[in-house]
Amino acid sequence: MGSLDSNPATFDAFAADAEGFQPLNADDVRSYLHKSVDFIYDYYKSVESMPVLPSVEPGYLSRLLQSAPPSAAAPFDIAMKEIRDAVVPGMTHWASPNFFAFFPATNSAAAIAGELIASAMNTVGFTWQANPAATEMEVLALDWLAQLLRLPKSFMMNRTTAGARGTGGGVILGTTSEAMLVTLVAARDAALRRMGSNGVAGINRLTVYAADQTHSTFFKACRLAGFDPSNIRSIPTGADTDYGLDPTRLLEVMQADVDAGLVPTYICATVGTTSSNAVDPVGAVADVAALFSAWVHVDAAYAGSACICPEFRHHLDGVERVDSISMSPHKWLMTCLDCTCLWVRDAHRLTDSLETNPEYLKNDVTDSGAVTDLKDMQVGVGRRFRGLKLWMVMRTYGATKLQEHIRSDVAMAKMFEESVRADDRFEVVVPRNFALVCFRIRPHDGMTEEAAEAVNRELMERLNRTGKAYLAHTVIGGKFVLRFAVGSSLQEERHVRSAWDLITKKTTEIMSREM
Amino acid sequence: MGSLDSNPATFDAFAADAEGFQPLNADDVRSYLHKSVDFIYDYYKSVESMPVLPSVEPGYLSRLLQSAPPSAAAPFDIAMKEIRDAVVPGMTHWASPNFFAFFPATNSAAAIAGELIASAMNTVGFTWQANPAATEMEVLALDWLAQLLRLPKSFMMNRTTAGARGTGGGVILGTTSEAMLVTLVAARDAALRRMGSNGVAGINRLTVYAADQTHSTFFKACRLAGFDPSNIRSIPTGADTDYGLDPTRLLEVMQADVDAGLVPTYICATVGTTSSNAVDPVGAVADVAALFSAWVHVDAAYAGSACICPEFRHHLDGVERVDSISMSPHKWLMTCLDCTCLWVRDAHRLTDSLETNPEYLKNDVTDSGAVTDLKDMQVGVGRRFRGLKLWMVMRTYGATKLQEHIRSDVAMAKMFEESVRADDRFEVVVPRNFALVCFRIRPHDGMTEEAAEAVNRELMERLNRTGKAYLAHTVIGGKFVLRFAVGSSLQEERHVRSAWDLITKKTTEIMSREM
Repeated sequence: MGSLDSNPATFDAFAADAEGFQPLNADDVRSYLHKSVDFIYDYYKSVESMPVLPSVEPGYLSRLLQSAPPSAAAPFDIAMKEIRDAVVPGMTHWASPNFFAFFPATNSAAAIAGELIASAMNTVGFTWQANPAATEMEVLALDWLAQLLRLPKSFMMNRTTAGARGTGGGVILGTTSEAMLVTLVAARDAALRRMGSNGVAGINRLTVYAADQTHSTFFKACRLAGFDPSNIRSIPTGADTDYGLDPTRLLEVMQADVDAGLVPTYICATVGTTSSNAVDPVGAVADVAALFSAWVHVDAAYAGSACICPEFRHHLDGVERVDSISMSPHKWLMTCLDCTCLWVRDAHRLTDSLETNPEYLKNDVTDSGAVTDLKDMQVGVGRRFRGLKLWMVMRTYGATKLQEHIRSDVAMAKMFEESVRADDRFEVVVPRNFALVCFRIRPHDGMTEEAAEAVNRELMERLNRTGKAYLAHTVIGGKFVLRFAVGSSLQEERHVRSAWDLITKKTTEIMSREM
Repeated sequence: MGSLDSNPATFDAFAADAEGFQPLNADDVRSYLHKSVDFIYDYYKSVESMPVLPSVEPGYLSRLLQSAPPSAAAPFDIAMKEIRDAVVPGMTHWASPNFFAFFPATNSAAAIAGELIASAMNTVGFTWQANPAATEMEVLALDWLAQLLRLPKSFMMNRTTAGARGTGGGVILGTTSEAMLVTLVAARDAALRRMGSNGVAGINRLTVYAADQTHSTFFKACRLAGFDPSNIRSIPTGADTDYGLDPTRLLEVMQADVDAGLVPTYICATVGTTSSNAVDPVGAVADVAALFSAWVHVDAAYAGSACICPEFRHHLDGVERVDSISMSPHKWLMTCLDCTCLWVRDAHRLTDSLETNPEYLKNDVTDSGAVTDLKDMQVGVGRRFRGLKLWMVMRTYGATKLQEHIRSDVAMAKMFEESVRADDRFEVVVPRNFALVCFRIRPHDGMTEEAAEAVNRELMERLNRTGKAYLAHTVIGGKFVLRFAVGSSLQEERHVRSAWDLITKKTTEIMSREM
């Protein structure tokens, strides 16, 4: 029937081509992946000895690799050789145990394996039907992690008690910024509806709030969502609250806005700021927000992972009264990039703003309302099999090992902090809450803040130039401060000890020159 | 110096713990990855025999796996067993050669290897300094692909002629939606500035345009960016333009808006719509847009990959006059999810809206202006080593194999189309442009459109229930149509032939019942 049998010549000509190129030939896949695994094994064994921060100049790679795409195919070994020769020497090695900058991107064997399997299966679970296993695995992983964090059941998609579907929901996104953006849009639309707005009329009356220590990406997300830049409130903090948001001040600012005819819409509270690990008081912020019906989002990108330990969970007290919370296992829960978990208390508030229903994605299961299509909780449509690696991390290591991992990082940070405190030349600038120590060379001999910045900047640059440690800096309360973030997954106590030795040595060099 | 030597007990106690759990132990990594590779090998060897669409019910996974996270660690084999027993049976197998739904998520050995290595290195290249190699590899991969697509040099970051940095730029994002969102925001802010707006005042005067065949995610992205829903124009198309955007109609609508005091801001032109692979005329749209200084974005998510072949490149004619273009190698260029490439002609228009500069990311190289920090071209801050797998695909297969891959998919689609045309019971509903065939059982015996929908829906459901093929549908010009998308990476001509045999068999069953 049809042209298939009537035109065999076409088929034969084509079949020859098809056999000529099989991009997913199982033997090739196995061979390429085995070579990649060998590379990774060698990399982990040798990364400690590589300079953490490379000494390459901008444009270095295009001088090493060909500038035009090749016309002909090449053996896989060619790409691997170029990775070894050209890519590795230009890497900032986040996997190095001598990496103390930013927050570490923690990782684990189970996570990498999970991502590998997801890459090979390469499914796109935009709707439940497009991949039931991927959708349900993501829901399960989020529910597991919610249990580890002791989040209220109202945030869970599958209530574990009755088996019934909860009103809450979660989704795994790529970044905290996306979690902020989608919740900002949901809060924006809800506020406009409450105002009786037709469309976006009145959007320039909506106001948003966060402490001045909040990550800059929050203020960017507000602009993306169309909030007026002049309505984005950055509330000053100080040493009196350890740079956490002061709820009294928040109340004053919000009330002043209401008095001026504006509409408080959204507050972002951070548990563990990027700059110094400051913690905004979640419960108190929620209480203030309730007075204005404003959405409260908790950004616990880094420190949320610590809250799987009972001794840190108090930082989330009051979370049962907020609207959404996000945290990123790719930061501190040994799950390779990217993996940001977002939970919302009322999933419908999110899907009301984000749902799409094109004809080609319609299906009976979606129509039945029995499932959540995860595309309706994110910016885009397409999505990887995101839940797998996170589930594999929890399945393989269990709560016990995950807690041990957090505690060992905190113990190392505490050890470093004690070293700093025991040396009069240094000071710890803000209290250490988790595994980040903010310290500096103490201003001495009547030094101005400018001079203190210069000497600390010099210390940082000297350290980083050695290739044996990489630290970043921040400014807190006008002070230039070094950030020492413990937790790179290959890190052991000896690396922290070596870094401290290097810091004291470089400081001695700098100070002896001052004499 | 410091407490390190003075408190050895603390160290010893800690060291024991640290040795107890090494999440990135190289031997464990190798062992877990080898097991994963074996799983993947078996999966590719057997996926053809699995039902493409699973028969599981909502909630199936939580009935198979434990609902609470484990407390204790478990051997890695436990997770692998649960993947085999619980996850695989609930998968919609996008990797199956019998998958013909949506657009295929094409993949290759080189891409999976690249993603694996990126996952293991696990770097976060938000700034150039945070990973020079990752930043430069992404720029290089985008420049290579731009050359394959013969994009104008104005879209490239590194001009290959003089070696000087171009004014254009590219970035790899997760989804087309994000590419739309960031360009919409850039266009929105530029339009507001041109209006002399203070903040977002006047945002409700900005209008955006796209054909009614444009992906629904575009209209969602407009709402995310704060455009007024009543200002989002969905321009009707019809069979007269093969469902492509009619520039005359576009001009009329835009002029009417201007006459009404509105401000045309952005037009999205699609090359290869999701529904039926319709193509909007890029050059003609750009000419209309120029009259209003509106931003033109080209969404070539799927069909952009075909434009690496000279015979398809004409679909991009006029691209030198647009402002931005995006396409997704994760759809049709054998690069596993996710990988959406965005190029903009003037990178500053994007970074003007998206740049952030927190203290802890400041560094000399960024300050020098010699590099682009890719965080300033995307929604979030964090990012994977996104360029590696795309570069590895081009490095390993070369232009020749990539073109062969496109051509073989198109040839198979053409073969299928000829089969449909040769059977009087069927009709091809719109001309086939790439590797998607939109067809249906031809209405017969005075059938109404409702009856035609019913019989075609029944055919689709019968086909999908066999587990031997998975097709999706769409509605074009009021007609319910089956979409047959060729190109799953394990697909060969015999799978297309089998699917056609199955279609004719099921159609015969349905029609014989009608008699």
